[in-house]
Amino acid sequence: MTAFPDPELGEPYLLTPGPLTTSAEVKQAMLRDWGSWDGDFRAMTAEVRRRLLEIAGDTAGAYDCVPLQGSGSYCVEAMLGSFVPRDGKVLVLANGAYGLRAAETMRYLGRAFTLIDKGDYLPPRGAEVAQALAADPAITHVLAIHCETSSGILNPIPEIAEATAQAGRKLLIDSMSAFGAVPLDVRDLQVEAFVSSANKCIEGVPGFGFVIARKETLAGAKGNSHSLALDLHAQWATMEKTGQWRYTPPTHVVAAFVKALEMHRAEGGAPARLARYTRNRDTMVAGMRALGFETLLADSWLSPIIVTFFCPADPAFAFPRFYELMKDRGFIIYPGKLTVVDSFRIGCIGRMDDTVMNRVVTAAQQSLADMGVASAVPPASALAERANLAA
Amino acid sequence: MTAFPDPELGEPYLLTPGPLTTSAEVKQAMLRDWGSWDGDFRAMTAEVRRRLLEIAGDTAGAYDCVPLQGSGSYCVEAMLGSFVPRDGKVLVLANGAYGLRAAETMRYLGRAFTLIDKGDYLPPRGAEVAQALAADPAITHVLAIHCETSSGILNPIPEIAEATAQAGRKLLIDSMSAFGAVPLDVRDLQVEAFVSSANKCIEGVPGFGFVIARKETLAGAKGNSHSLALDLHAQWATMEKTGQWRYTPPTHVVAAFVKALEMHRAEGGAPARLARYTRNRDTMVAGMRALGFETLLADSWLSPIIVTFFCPADPAFAFPRFYELMKDRGFIIYPGKLTVVDSFRIGCIGRMDDTVMNRVVTAAQQSLADMGVASAVPPASALAERANLAA
Repeated sequence: MTAFPDPELGEPYLLTPGPLTTSAEVKQAMLRDWGSWDGDFRAMTAEVRRRLLEIAGDTAGAYDCVPLQGSGSYCVEAMLGSFVPRDGKVLVLANGAYGLRAAETMRYLGRAFTLIDKGDYLPPRGAEVAQALAADPAITHVLAIHCETSSGILNPIPEIAEATAQAGRKLLIDSMSAFGAVPLDVRDLQVEAFVSSANKCIEGVPGFGFVIARKETLAGAKGNSHSLALDLHAQWATMEKTGQWRYTPPTHVVAAFVKALEMHRAEGGAPARLARYTRNRDTMVAGMRALGFETLLADSWLSPIIVTFFCPADPAFAFPRFYELMKDRGFIIYPGKLTVVDSFRIGCIGRMDDTVMNRVVTAAQQSLADMGVASAVPPASALAERANLAA
Repeated sequence: MTAFPDPELGEPYLLTPGPLTTSAEVKQAMLRDWGSWDGDFRAMTAEVRRRLLEIAGDTAGAYDCVPLQGSGSYCVEAMLGSFVPRDGKVLVLANGAYGLRAAETMRYLGRAFTLIDKGDYLPPRGAEVAQALAADPAITHVLAIHCETSSGILNPIPEIAEATAQAGRKLLIDSMSAFGAVPLDVRDLQVEAFVSSANKCIEGVPGFGFVIARKETLAGAKGNSHSLALDLHAQWATMEKTGQWRYTPPTHVVAAFVKALEMHRAEGGAPARLARYTRNRDTMVAGMRALGFETLLADSWLSPIIVTFFCPADPAFAFPRFYELMKDRGFIIYPGKLTVVDSFRIGCIGRMDDTVMNRVVTAAQQSLADMGVASAVPPASALAERANLAA
């Protein structure tokens, strides 16, 4: 593996779940201009689609990959608008901002949905999905979030998929921050479609996302979308016919992604990436715990993507100051999103390894010392909140 | 001005209206990663918005600028979906693919519209707009295309704006390929909102577009959009409140655009860019005419953005071969979009000057010779088609 970027050079590591730190090679791939109509660029688009289907395990050729300009949330909206029939109904499983955003999308679409909202971090379980589906035969689709980065929880997709399949409904997954590292293989999971984006576990730069869907789903989606720009059938049909994106693609971002895919494969694909991110997480969590910090989640629910820590109870701790002190040391961390207790998040994905994560822990220790924080232990209210999950 | 890219280095010039050839400096600005939540990036977003309003001439502070992830067409859809009330009605003025795409967008939105379709290249005139508005009091908005790159025509925006204002209706402009070079000043023109994108006359790389709209229009657009991702009110409200984009922005593309705006100003702003593009066009058109090529449009309708030429009548001419021969010489040209006669297009925008355009003409001459084309004169049918415009 090539060298990791060095914060000594003035560029901080991004300990956030996208945008994240990318390799120098990925960024250097953006140093030329490409004509989107030209054959060279069309070949790059074809390569991106083919490689993503490989990572998804589509050896049977039952799925296709449709890249789409915009952020990952555009892809979620495109998937819901294109694949849920106008008279369909979606069971949205939420335990954080991204699940709630999917519900908000359904509101914009004006299509029926039911929301199971588990609050800040409790996981939606297979049994309650089964119960909800049994109770409402109108539900046609289930929408699940793979890794909900609001808390950093890795949701139990296999049991949700099983409950959905057993009830004869269709599963849509927002695998934005998980695909490319956390297993998501269409041979193991009955899934209708899922989405991810360029600048998550594949370690490209932001600018487009992609949908991987059953070919029959794509073919059957004609006329379904509420939006021209977000019509996955139209985007797919044009790509199939001409090899081009319908509208101007972010050519440089696509070129960077081709390089990112090459480096993903060279590292050993999703399993190797999962192993590196897991080492990143384990190193960082162990170090932070040694400083007195506590994670929101028990180990079994911790994703290798991003981890939520409670803010220390010590009144000398203030997150904005901690953020700046960490940034001065070359690390950009992420504010928390919990509604009940103060927290912050540290990402484990991107172009970095456990050596970098050890430096993150040292930087946290030094930043606490600068603030005069004697102990990183959270308030009792935070630990009481966490007890909910164990229950 | 810095040196232009050199095709000798292996990178062809893009003679297309976006993606286009950008400067090395603009691309080099993409060589680092930015946290979208971080203050440094928020400052870049604020700078982009402020500078674009300056270029639009908004000295009174009546307008605001909302960047939006995705291609320029996303912005057109966002503008229509956010600003045309659900019971509104749009007069769409079409003379090419982009006007027809706006009509298709209205169809997806399920909102009322009337289409004036002038065919491949005839301009919509102020008088017919006035007539259409007088005939239909239900029309609330007029949608015009500034430069219709299908043919390369510069549509008569001032007379369309006057007719719209006199009828008390609101004007929306797709100024994708024109803004930043062709005059579009909110002090001179009564315009409700217009859109453009990062990789046209500002010479950034593709990945986002922007809408410039009256503040009262943005404030009044709440709840109007058919799409969460394309809701300009929501995007604007979040940017005003937090300085952040709602969803992950294409950070590298934004960094490149900051550099592009800096170079735009250093060159002398929109007037200087218009002058350079006009020289590019005049040099290239004169040279091509000297080879026997004929333009679709009379000089008064030629934009400084892109020019359509008829394909030669000589049976030795074949566009795919001409394209490859031009590409081998370092120039990527653009196929035509006319429905009636064979044509191709050559763009005049991007990081190039009249020296480069002279080389384009030389390359065209050599490519014709390689193909054994004796004369570049178009068929009589093409010239007869063109006579329509004069009539």
